[in-house]
Amino acid sequence: MPDRTLLPEHIRAVLDGVNAFGADPMGGWSRVAFSDADMAARRWLRKHFEDLGLDARIDAIGNVIGRWGPPDAPAILLGSHTDTVPRGGAFDGVFGVAAGVAALMALRARYPKPLLAIEVISFADEEGRFGGMFGSQALSGQIAPGWVDAAHDADGIFLVEAMRRHGLDAHAAHGVARAPGSVRAYIEAHVEQGPVLETAGVPVGIAPSITGVCVTRTELTGQADHSGTTPMGHRRDALAAAAEAIAAIPRMLAELGAPDARATVGKLDVRPNTPHTIPGAVEFTAVLRDGDASVIRALEEGVAGVTATAATRHGVASHTERLSWLSPAELDPGLSNLAARCASEAGIGYAIVPSGAGHDAQSMQALCPSALLFAPSRGGISHAPEEHTDMNDMAEVAAVMVLLLNRLIRETL
Amino acid sequence: MPDRTLLPEHIRAVLDGVNAFGADPMGGWSRVAFSDADMAARRWLRKHFEDLGLDARIDAIGNVIGRWGPPDAPAILLGSHTDTVPRGGAFDGVFGVAAGVAALMALRARYPKPLLAIEVISFADEEGRFGGMFGSQALSGQIAPGWVDAAHDADGIFLVEAMRRHGLDAHAAHGVARAPGSVRAYIEAHVEQGPVLETAGVPVGIAPSITGVCVTRTELTGQADHSGTTPMGHRRDALAAAAEAIAAIPRMLAELGAPDARATVGKLDVRPNTPHTIPGAVEFTAVLRDGDASVIRALEEGVAGVTATAATRHGVASHTERLSWLSPAELDPGLSNLAARCASEAGIGYAIVPSGAGHDAQSMQALCPSALLFAPSRGGISHAPEEHTDMNDMAEVAAVMVLLLNRLIRETL
Repeated sequence: MPDRTLLPEHIRAVLDGVNAFGADPMGGWSRVAFSDADMAARRWLRKHFEDLGLDARIDAIGNVIGRWGPPDAPAILLGSHTDTVPRGGAFDGVFGVAAGVAALMALRARYPKPLLAIEVISFADEEGRFGGMFGSQALSGQIAPGWVDAAHDADGIFLVEAMRRHGLDAHAAHGVARAPGSVRAYIEAHVEQGPVLETAGVPVGIAPSITGVCVTRTELTGQADHSGTTPMGHRRDALAAAAEAIAAIPRMLAELGAPDARATVGKLDVRPNTPHTIPGAVEFTAVLRDGDASVIRALEEGVAGVTATAATRHGVASHTERLSWLSPAELDPGLSNLAARCASEAGIGYAIVPSGAGHDAQSMQALCPSALLFAPSRGGISHAPEEHTDMNDMAEVAAVMVLLLNRLIRETL
Repeated sequence: MPDRTLLPEHIRAVLDGVNAFGADPMGGWSRVAFSDADMAARRWLRKHFEDLGLDARIDAIGNVIGRWGPPDAPAILLGSHTDTVPRGGAFDGVFGVAAGVAALMALRARYPKPLLAIEVISFADEEGRFGGMFGSQALSGQIAPGWVDAAHDADGIFLVEAMRRHGLDAHAAHGVARAPGSVRAYIEAHVEQGPVLETAGVPVGIAPSITGVCVTRTELTGQADHSGTTPMGHRRDALAAAAEAIAAIPRMLAELGAPDARATVGKLDVRPNTPHTIPGAVEFTAVLRDGDASVIRALEEGVAGVTATAATRHGVASHTERLSWLSPAELDPGLSNLAARCASEAGIGYAIVPSGAGHDAQSMQALCPSALLFAPSRGGISHAPEEHTDMNDMAEVAAVMVLLLNRLIRETL
């Protein structure tokens, strides 16, 4: 059993070091990808890797890498990201890099002359300022031709320009792709961003999969009329129909019997949206998630179905269309099972928690067996200044990572 | 039986004359109260009254009055208004003035020396630019002290200023009030603004009452969370709760068993209103109408009740408050019954249609017995350029008015 006593210290050092950059006057941390704060944190991280005696570099597209082990040996990668959403929390992403450092240092103390290399990495733009998970998609060879030149953020700033400001070259994305076989595994730690682990009272989550996401848009078209003079039976009220459809979604979910399926109507707009006029039109989105693509398709049909039923009853026309689709990603079952066995043998409580949010591990699974470990998020809150994860829990996740690496390294011996 | 052949001609003359003013380049007519177009139409109407041989004037607050009969005799008033909402239709209000002129002319042909006077009136600001029904409330002595100086429109323009521009004096409102007993009856014709008469296939509606209106605002406060990572059972989704509440309103209405009760959720706003975030807050209005105040109060409690139930189920806080209240107005039953008998005896089809919208008749009922007659609105549409009422139907309504006046005059003989 490797020494676990130094794990909290190493985790704390990375959290504090990175979070010295980008503290937002409005609360939380803003290290949006390729901002000055993001790049300053990355330069600090490179220096921290050097100080720890690792081969440290920032590659041509902004990934920060610290490597230990033989130069030509295949590597196991540990990491996550250090960029944030605007006014995000102190743990999302950074914790994965911190856990990677802590685990690597624990392993190095035990195996002075490894046959495998271990790298800790902070991927560039995980939060998707430019629409993807740029760093991990590049490393896993998944950047489509032409994408780099077209990519821009919500303000119309192009990826190529944003990177050039910092001496980075977006077109080098294809050059940083790792050769298949050169990476044995990728292990990511992350905060859960949900309440499952806290509710279950266990410090570790293992994500067997990352859910797919389908976004639909529904339009309901009725007739805007005078609220006083139009009898109830003569109305074609688009909002009454929309409300009935949305109210039917929980029952639709229950009938589907997929316990992890999620359906969210987050955006709804009414026209003309004045108190005395019967709503003539309503538009709403539904975000549908599950680990099983067939369940997502059933949710999509379900939303269209309950809407059509409600629309018919209210004499309103309805149309539901798909805006986007992301297939669910299965992470490596062998690696997840091994992580579960490590936790179990060490007496560390864990739960299997499919990930509802996207992570670099889903990109990396295309390149190598990948695993995703969660630490509990207090109150399930993330992407907000209130985000918090206990050090004890983070250390337990890092300990499972150490045990897992230990098994992988011994298998290689 | 008075001569009915000239009714369409007189109606057409007033419609065309008034609608020569305020045609809106965006469609429809914009003769908003005390605008240049409104006042130009009123001056045309005074001239038209003069041309017809009536005693014509515009009073100090903008009411246009054409009178026929002995100077000191009590009067029967006929009319409505010639102001419009922005981009309104060609019939709302004007038809009532036109029908009044047509009826007066038919009566004058039959009774050259009446004991009663008949006046046709176009009231000022019926559409409520300044928040009330200024002209008819002034004539019926219902302007509260201090109201005139405080009244302003949605752009912050004060009533006193808007009227001064046209040489009118808002403070004269108290001076134009008629003495009780000096007005025997008020009879108003108006387009229905709803689909009941068209659906029933009859040309005439008789409104026994004008419904009251209560407007409520409901706030639902939940928790904005990540749509991917928050399990369904952990959510406090304000929109899911609002949808369930709104979807429960039809059942609540049915259980109330008030066939003319109307409940409309016309305005609903979601925060933060983005697809991937569970709605943290929703605000919606409900407009509740009925002819019976106790039914409106039951609707108000019903909306608060279904909302509280849905909110509790979704772990969301709810608060429903009253924004405004207008009591229902009963018009004169004797006059309505007499109108129905006149229609029936003449073989003119009619239906009893409580008015869902407000009209000058509800102000005038405070002064004298008042009746409200409707002509069908095509498709139930009003307050829009598409507003239309057939001339045949308008003439039938005017004919009922003539028959009703005939009875009232003969009773006086």
